[in-house]
Amino acid sequence: MEQSCLVLSFSIDPVPVNLSVEKDNEIRFEQDREFMKLAIDLAKHGEGSVEPNPMVGCVLVRDGKVIGRGFHRVFGGPHAEVDAIMSLASQDHARGSTAYVSLEPCCHQGKTPPCTRALIASGVSRVVIAMKDPFAKVDGGGISELTDHGIDVSVGVMESEATQLLAPYLKRIRTGIPWVIAKWAMTMDGKIATVDRQSKWITGDNSRAEVHRLRNRVDAVIVGMGTVEADDPQLTTRLPEGEAPKRTAVRVVLCHHRVPSIDSKLIQTANQTATLLLVSRAVPTSMLEDLHATAVEIVQLDAENRNEIVIAALQHLGERGFTNVMIEGGGEIFSSFFSVDQIDEAHVFVGPKAFGSAAAPGPISGDGVKEVAQAWQFTVADVRQFDDDVRIIYRRKSDPLR
Amino acid sequence: MEQSCLVLSFSIDPVPVNLSVEKDNEIRFEQDREFMKLAIDLAKHGEGSVEPNPMVGCVLVRDGKVIGRGFHRVFGGPHAEVDAIMSLASQDHARGSTAYVSLEPCCHQGKTPPCTRALIASGVSRVVIAMKDPFAKVDGGGISELTDHGIDVSVGVMESEATQLLAPYLKRIRTGIPWVIAKWAMTMDGKIATVDRQSKWITGDNSRAEVHRLRNRVDAVIVGMGTVEADDPQLTTRLPEGEAPKRTAVRVVLCHHRVPSIDSKLIQTANQTATLLLVSRAVPTSMLEDLHATAVEIVQLDAENRNEIVIAALQHLGERGFTNVMIEGGGEIFSSFFSVDQIDEAHVFVGPKAFGSAAAPGPISGDGVKEVAQAWQFTVADVRQFDDDVRIIYRRKSDPLR
Repeated sequence: MEQSCLVLSFSIDPVPVNLSVEKDNEIRFEQDREFMKLAIDLAKHGEGSVEPNPMVGCVLVRDGKVIGRGFHRVFGGPHAEVDAIMSLASQDHARGSTAYVSLEPCCHQGKTPPCTRALIASGVSRVVIAMKDPFAKVDGGGISELTDHGIDVSVGVMESEATQLLAPYLKRIRTGIPWVIAKWAMTMDGKIATVDRQSKWITGDNSRAEVHRLRNRVDAVIVGMGTVEADDPQLTTRLPEGEAPKRTAVRVVLCHHRVPSIDSKLIQTANQTATLLLVSRAVPTSMLEDLHATAVEIVQLDAENRNEIVIAALQHLGERGFTNVMIEGGGEIFSSFFSVDQIDEAHVFVGPKAFGSAAAPGPISGDGVKEVAQAWQFTVADVRQFDDDVRIIYRRKSDPLR
Repeated sequence: MEQSCLVLSFSIDPVPVNLSVEKDNEIRFEQDREFMKLAIDLAKHGEGSVEPNPMVGCVLVRDGKVIGRGFHRVFGGPHAEVDAIMSLASQDHARGSTAYVSLEPCCHQGKTPPCTRALIASGVSRVVIAMKDPFAKVDGGGISELTDHGIDVSVGVMESEATQLLAPYLKRIRTGIPWVIAKWAMTMDGKIATVDRQSKWITGDNSRAEVHRLRNRVDAVIVGMGTVEADDPQLTTRLPEGEAPKRTAVRVVLCHHRVPSIDSKLIQTANQTATLLLVSRAVPTSMLEDLHATAVEIVQLDAENRNEIVIAALQHLGERGFTNVMIEGGGEIFSSFFSVDQIDEAHVFVGPKAFGSAAAPGPISGDGVKEVAQAWQFTVADVRQFDDDVRIIYRRKSDPLR
C-alpha cells in the first residue's frame, strides 16, 4: 500500500530523493521514540532510591541495536550515562554509537564527575535527550558542552513522557515545594470509616502492602492531629518479606492547635524512626515542654491558620530536599491541602464494601466546593486491581508548576 | 516434561492403558471447557433482548472443530440450539456431532417447540450442558429426554461461569424477585453532589452513554421521591447514534409519603414512556386524584415502612416478569435496598474530581452500619476506564439465592 502511494506521488512530482529523505526521517523519528521509551522505562527503576536526584535512564544504540543500557540506581552512585557505558563488554564499543538519555546530561561536578565528560570520552557521535534539565547548574549547559565537542544532539524526543516521569523533581526544582501524594482508602460508597468511626479494614492485605511500598519510596509521611488522636498510628514501613527498603520516610505531624501526647506511638518510637512535628504559632509553648526530652524533632512554623500551615510545612520540607511527600489523612488535612491546591497526585483505594450513612466520614472534610466547576480536577494515571480492591492513581489536571 | 513423567509412572506401575485413558479424559475435559466457554460467550449476545428468557448459547462440534454456532437472540425467536442447527450449511451436518449448550435444553412447548426435539431430530450424538435449568417446566426433564433417546449427556461443564451469567434469571426463577442493579456516579472522594447539591456532571459523556446502554437492557429504572423532587429526571434511554434499542425500561417511582407532581417530567411524558408509581399505604389517596387522569400507572403496595416497600415493590416487579431492574438513587432508596440486602450488583462510576465537605452527600444515606464486619460486601466483576472515569462493577459476595 505504502509503496503504491510512493509511485503515485512520483508520477505527479518526481522528487524521489526528498521522499526517501522524508521516509528516512520518519523511520529515525520512530526509532528515536522507541529507544527513548526504553530509556524512560529504565529510569523508573531508580524511583525511591535516587531522590533528591532525578530518575534518569540511558540506552546506547548502534546500527539500530541496543548495545548498552543503564540508569541512575541510587543517590551518590553513577549516573545513567556512566551506568550504560559501564554495561558494555568493552568501553570503546560506545564509539560512534547514539546515546538516548531521558534528561539532559549534567555538566557539573556533583557527587560524581559530569556526565558530559563521560559521554565525550566514550566517543558517542550522537546524543538524544528527552528534555532539558532545569536544575540551575545544568539548564542547557550539558547540551552546549556536547555540541561544542562536535556531538550531534537532538532534544525533545518523548519530552512529555519524560516530564510526567520527572514531575516531582521538576516541581521541587522550580517551586521549592515537594510533590504531594494524597493516599486514602474508601469503601465503594466513599466512606473512610463507619458511622461509629471503625475503619479496620476497608481494603485487603495486598492493597495495604502497596501502601507500604509507597511509604518506602517517599521522603515523608504526613498526618494531622486528628489522625494521631483517632488512630495512634505508627506510620512505619512494613514491607512484604523479601522486598528491599529504599528510604525511611520521616513521620511528619502538622500541629495546628495541639501536639501528640507523649504516650503516642509516634513519640514513643521517635528514637527509632525520625519524627517531625511542624508546629503552628497557635500551639502554646507549654505543650511542647515534655516533648523536648524525647527524640522527636520540633520545628516552629511561621504560620497560624490552616492554609498558611500547609504552605509553610511544604516549604520547610522542600528546603530539606524532600522530593515526594505523602499525606495519609485525615479529612481536615486533605481539605487544607486541597484548599491551597497542593495535591499533585492521589492514590485512591476503593474497597468492596458499603458502609452507608451520611454521618459516616468521607476522605475530605472542610468546606468543600459549592459548584461543580470549582471542583479539584484530576486525570487518571493508572488503574489497578488488588484482589477486590481497585486502586486509582490520579494526577492533578492543572500544571503543578504554574 | 509431561512425557518423562509418564515414563516414570510407567516404570513403577505398568498401567499404560489407564494412563492413556486418563490423558484422553483430560484432553476431552479441556476441550469441553473450551467449547462451553464459546457457548457462554455467544449467550451473552442475547443480553437485554431475550429476557425474561435466559441467555443461552450453543456450539456444534465435530472432530474437534466448531461447525455451527448459535444463541437465543430475541424473546420469542429461536432458541440457541435451533439457531446453531440453522447455522449449518446443511442440517444433516449435525448428525454425530456434539452440541455444547450453556443451559439445559427445554423440553416443553413455549413460544417455540422444545429444543430437545430439535436436538434429537438433528442426530447429535452427545450434548454437553453447563447447568440444569431450574425452571419448573424443565428442571432435568430436558436431560432425561435426551438420554432416553440414547444421546450421551454431560452436565456441569463450566457450571459456575454459566451460573454467573444467568444469575439474574436464576434469582427471578428461584425467588420471584428481579436482579437489582444499583448505579451511582461519585467523585474520587465519594460524593454524589457538592455541598450545594450540584451534580452536573461528575462523570463524562462516555460514562453517561454507558449508563444509557445499561438502561437499554433492563426492565425497570427505579428512583425514589427524593430524586424526582431534586432532579426532575426523565429516565429515558438516549443511546449513542447507531446503537440498537433493546427494550424500554419502565420508569418506576417508589412513593413512601409523596407522589410526583403532575408537572414533573415523569408524569408529563408518561404517555410516551411507561411510568409506574408503586405507592405505600402511607400516601393519602387524595394525593393520587389528579394522577388518575394521566397516563401513569399506579399500583398500591401492601406496605408502609421503607423496608416493606422495597420487598413489596420487588415482588410486584418480579410478578410482572421483570428480570433486571436498576436503581438510580437517591441515597434513601439505596439505603433501603441495602437494608433488606437486595442489591445484587452495583455499577459505580468514579469521576476524576474532588468536592470535599462532610456535608456533601454520598451515594448511600440512612443509618448505615456501625461495625466494619456488618458492611455489605461485594466482589469486583469488572473494572473499566471511560476517559478519566473508572467504572467498577460489583457483585454481592453472599449468595443472592439464599
